[in-house]
Amino acid sequence: MPAISSKGRQMPASPIRKLVPFAEAAKKRGTQVIHLNIGQPDIATPEVALDAIRHLDRTVIEYSHSAGYESYRKGLVNYYAQHDIHVTAEQIIITNGGSEALLFGMMACFEPGDELIIPEPYYANYNSFALSAGVKVVPVRSTIEDGFALPPISAFESLITPRTKGILICNPGNPTGTLYSREELDTLRAIVLKHDLYLFADEVYREFCYEGATHVSAMTLPGLEQHVILVDSVSKRYSMCGARVGAFITRNAELYATVLKFAQARLSPPTFGQIASEAALRTPRSYFDGVIAEYVQRRDILVDGLNAIPGVRCPKPQGAFYCVAELPIDDADRFCQWLLEDFAHEGSTVMMAPCSGFYADPATGKYQVRLAYVLEQPLLRKAVQVLAAALQVYPGTRKPAERNASVNA
Amino acid sequence: MPAISSKGRQMPASPIRKLVPFAEAAKKRGTQVIHLNIGQPDIATPEVALDAIRHLDRTVIEYSHSAGYESYRKGLVNYYAQHDIHVTAEQIIITNGGSEALLFGMMACFEPGDELIIPEPYYANYNSFALSAGVKVVPVRSTIEDGFALPPISAFESLITPRTKGILICNPGNPTGTLYSREELDTLRAIVLKHDLYLFADEVYREFCYEGATHVSAMTLPGLEQHVILVDSVSKRYSMCGARVGAFITRNAELYATVLKFAQARLSPPTFGQIASEAALRTPRSYFDGVIAEYVQRRDILVDGLNAIPGVRCPKPQGAFYCVAELPIDDADRFCQWLLEDFAHEGSTVMMAPCSGFYADPATGKYQVRLAYVLEQPLLRKAVQVLAAALQVYPGTRKPAERNASVNA
Repeated sequence: MPAISSKGRQMPASPIRKLVPFAEAAKKRGTQVIHLNIGQPDIATPEVALDAIRHLDRTVIEYSHSAGYESYRKGLVNYYAQHDIHVTAEQIIITNGGSEALLFGMMACFEPGDELIIPEPYYANYNSFALSAGVKVVPVRSTIEDGFALPPISAFESLITPRTKGILICNPGNPTGTLYSREELDTLRAIVLKHDLYLFADEVYREFCYEGATHVSAMTLPGLEQHVILVDSVSKRYSMCGARVGAFITRNAELYATVLKFAQARLSPPTFGQIASEAALRTPRSYFDGVIAEYVQRRDILVDGLNAIPGVRCPKPQGAFYCVAELPIDDADRFCQWLLEDFAHEGSTVMMAPCSGFYADPATGKYQVRLAYVLEQPLLRKAVQVLAAALQVYPGTRKPAERNASVNA
Repeated sequence: MPAISSKGRQMPASPIRKLVPFAEAAKKRGTQVIHLNIGQPDIATPEVALDAIRHLDRTVIEYSHSAGYESYRKGLVNYYAQHDIHVTAEQIIITNGGSEALLFGMMACFEPGDELIIPEPYYANYNSFALSAGVKVVPVRSTIEDGFALPPISAFESLITPRTKGILICNPGNPTGTLYSREELDTLRAIVLKHDLYLFADEVYREFCYEGATHVSAMTLPGLEQHVILVDSVSKRYSMCGARVGAFITRNAELYATVLKFAQARLSPPTFGQIASEAALRTPRSYFDGVIAEYVQRRDILVDGLNAIPGVRCPKPQGAFYCVAELPIDDADRFCQWLLEDFAHEGSTVMMAPCSGFYADPATGKYQVRLAYVLEQPLLRKAVQVLAAALQVYPGTRKPAERNASVNA
């Protein structure tokens, strides 16, 4: 039997999905599983997008241009301009979700063994794309104590080596919900220019900024025309995760031409998804106002509820729809599995993503979990009750004295 | 400005699309361009697939399972069984077209520097996926003199090195239209077993076999359960290239689990495309009968027409909808560009794919072009007339004496 490749063996299983078999077993036992583990919104896809699909008037479902339909790219130019991002249709390549944009970008920018600095905790699948391209992820730690703010410039500088070729940020952040300020982005800009790095900016949660906070795109940073790669996706914006439509955007003409060759090899992004996405550009502002108001209420129920549980700490996110909570437990992987295998409160339990998969060193996230607030408010209230009850009986719950000892250790 | 990666620089531009600017210029001059260069069928997508899209009854376009909808995979199990391919739903991963199945497979099976033997001429984008995975393509030559039959076992044996990890075939073949016999596949089976190799079988043109010829799938070869990877796609079968739905199929459980990790990283194949593809499984047999009858007529018009032109040689394909023709010219790249830039016959010219991109060494395909017969019959007749006229006036057309000299050189 021929061998599996090293990459194949090293590729991590999804930390978000690996508990699925335990959840399925719980459901078979009749337990209600409240899914806080995955960023699949329950929000309705805009009608204007679904209508475009229902009124499909084609007889042959052809390939599109490898960079995506020109009409869609032109529509995106207007959309981005409303967000102070000024690009042309020839600077956009439509991709199979943000995932493909990340993979193509890493393939085109980095040699195997090159280093990419990512503030951690970070979206677990960045590890997978980096591994596919042979890139070494170098984490720079952001801490729950600082509300997961961007680490200081000195922290980045101390990690720079001759192999450092890029920095990747997610803003607003998955899994932390952190929104970077203009000052933080200016810090990044200085590092990128000084060391001539690529800056990957994953901004797929752009629309989800709360309490009037303004999103600042990396594309607005002056002097970084050759350095910035914007990664985008319609998945969360329009609650259209299954459309598999994202974008790779850069003003660097040589990089654009390079990524276009990768795009040509896979021929075309999905036609149906592009039709829906182009129509979704006509989504009224009121849709987003409603969605954002709903997410703020959900966030407050979940985050305020978590912080009211003794020993739990959860910074309030300013964007996206995730939060990271530190729990008074021995091990988040064990706790999340125990919740599904051995616990129910009034017939319900909770599924969360242990943070081990969101750090380069899994041990760093040992006490942390990621929770997505993409469920209806009553379910989120119940989830908080379930967690409070669970922490009282879970065998690995640490008492305050143990927690202090652990922090001082 | 940061540097582009080696992979990015080496990635070939699509040989099928690189002449597009010249075609656009020709159209602007008012010349009709007959597109024989690309395998985008004009055949209507089955109504049953389009209807499923038009009657979409969802309100949220969610991710599917990373391996694709279970209902679709179960439907595929029945479809494959009708083609004597016996697999389970747990041996199928739905991918973003056949392209992603090839990329995932190469990533999971091969170390950078491993060697993959491919009978040439071969589908140009195999080079791109191999380059992405760091795999070295080792061509084994099939010749136009032998109608592009599978090379003898000795030709494979002479290429095997300690780094050889796999063989890739396309059956029926793009670009040659060659259909491998059971005897040829048994030859492959022996090599694969003897050297413990992976066998990638790209069978996306399975339906398109002519004159009652039977397609033999690599999945039917006994004893290769751990070795065979079947690459599939709905693109050509249902004239639904834009759906971007393919499949990675293997009975090797370890390899399946490995590829599933790559699939989890990109979350989900496209939802709309899967809905259309699942419905397309109900396409009546009469649809294929009609399509195949049409392709046979088109093939005969094009191939018989080409062979009637002095100095042109074109083996008659037994499957798919491409053929490779050898032309009495100095250079196929130059000729194809000249056709678009400097020639028209009664207001029309022809766009073809030079075969340089279909060989590991571009010089091998110097006199050959690939033509797709996916256009209406009158257009194909006109294309033959255009080519006959063009070869009479093209400055690089070789006379019979020159041709003989070149063959003997």
